[in-house]
Amino acid sequence: MGKLLGFLVLFPSLFIGLVAADWNIFSQKRENGVGSSLKNYCESWRMNVELNNIREFDVVPQECVEYIQKYMTSSQYKADSERAVEEVTLYLSSCCTMKGDGKDAWIFDVDDTLLSTVPYYKKHGFGGMKLNATSLEAWMLEGKAPALEHTYKLFDEIKDKGLKIFLISSRKETLRSSTVDNLIKVGYHGWKTLMLRGLEDEFLEVKRYKSKARQHLINEGYRVWGIVGDQWSSFEGPPSAKRTFKLPNSIYYLA
Amino acid sequence: MGKLLGFLVLFPSLFIGLVAADWNIFSQKRENGVGSSLKNYCESWRMNVELNNIREFDVVPQECVEYIQKYMTSSQYKADSERAVEEVTLYLSSCCTMKGDGKDAWIFDVDDTLLSTVPYYKKHGFGGMKLNATSLEAWMLEGKAPALEHTYKLFDEIKDKGLKIFLISSRKETLRSSTVDNLIKVGYHGWKTLMLRGLEDEFLEVKRYKSKARQHLINEGYRVWGIVGDQWSSFEGPPSAKRTFKLPNSIYYLA
Repeated sequence: MGKLLGFLVLFPSLFIGLVAADWNIFSQKRENGVGSSLKNYCESWRMNVELNNIREFDVVPQECVEYIQKYMTSSQYKADSERAVEEVTLYLSSCCTMKGDGKDAWIFDVDDTLLSTVPYYKKHGFGGMKLNATSLEAWMLEGKAPALEHTYKLFDEIKDKGLKIFLISSRKETLRSSTVDNLIKVGYHGWKTLMLRGLEDEFLEVKRYKSKARQHLINEGYRVWGIVGDQWSSFEGPPSAKRTFKLPNSIYYLA
Repeated sequence: MGKLLGFLVLFPSLFIGLVAADWNIFSQKRENGVGSSLKNYCESWRMNVELNNIREFDVVPQECVEYIQKYMTSSQYKADSERAVEEVTLYLSSCCTMKGDGKDAWIFDVDDTLLSTVPYYKKHGFGGMKLNATSLEAWMLEGKAPALEHTYKLFDEIKDKGLKIFLISSRKETLRSSTVDNLIKVGYHGWKTLMLRGLEDEFLEVKRYKSKARQHLINEGYRVWGIVGDQWSSFEGPPSAKRTFKLPNSIYYLA
């Protein structure tokens, strides 16, 4: 041990050099080997969530939490969402022969479509921890969710076209006033109806609840030209809309 | 000019240094600025194709052809496809209470699900050129498409479970013998029926043709437990299967 210490005192730069070389090898491994295959793995996980191949997940895999956080706060997430919105605009330019009878409708999700829950998940494990509904609802009650810029512009565009906007959210009815306040505070206004989950729907799957809500609109004579949402469950089941647009979101899954 | 030449002869390394510095700035721009935003753009394009937000495209945008080629021949494409297949395996482990009456069925696409058309597109602009059906069909007639490794294993797994396998392809009926030969040559065998587009279906949208083919199976009493395909049009329209699995493919779009 004394010899090793003596060696280190005499040749400190050699020791530093060895550590540095080792660190380089480690970094390279992270980049090309272990690290890159973890990136491949997490990217595949995310892609298969968006492809609707991976369903019903409770949490983001532990080893991918950092990767998903990076994506959901990246310029790529923004670009992906903006591109989705551009496709809605393109569709709107030719889709809808409106009758002017006030029955042309458009549906939006609320969370991670109009408002972002990313600030909440940033503080609560970014999808890597099982959802604590009480804690999330407490956060929603504060009404401090920021708007998602890309859909913010689209919302007004759709309204200006004369379409009636329906917000179908799986938030509970008890969150109504905070949700309305939050939406208005960040600039959304002029929707026709905000549909929230009442007691009778609380035990329905989100998919069934949203399908029931759409059926209600159809029964009232609305023509639903499109839906923008961040969950596949916002589109599934009858009646379907003429087009659906899926925004990226790999933090959580609503069945 | 003479002075400049003299300067260059006297200080060649300074000149090289200046050029190198400029080149570095250029490379950095490509990495962080122009290059990275093109990457963002093309990645968004690809993601929105997979999200089924971008539909009916004739060609891959020119500026993204290189990017798409890189992805479709990458380890990421392989990892994404393999993950999709793993999800099928997971689903199969608990999905299907089979009656043993020979009526449990599974559907596969052919191109870019069982066989890869990537070798063709490599030689023909990789999605950046409008499809020349004659040229593609001539290539298919040669019967040299390689198997997609990931689905190859899955095919046998599904067959071993006792499910009847139906291949529903938008290839023309005239390609039947080349298709069968090609499939067998690369190792696929034991499917129940290969359904191809006859003359009467040639002018149907792929979506309608495939939906009609599924209806035919249902009418014959089959229970379709799942579909694996690389196009959204392989799943859309009634009757739907219990589950669908979308493989990545951003080279072309079949409506």
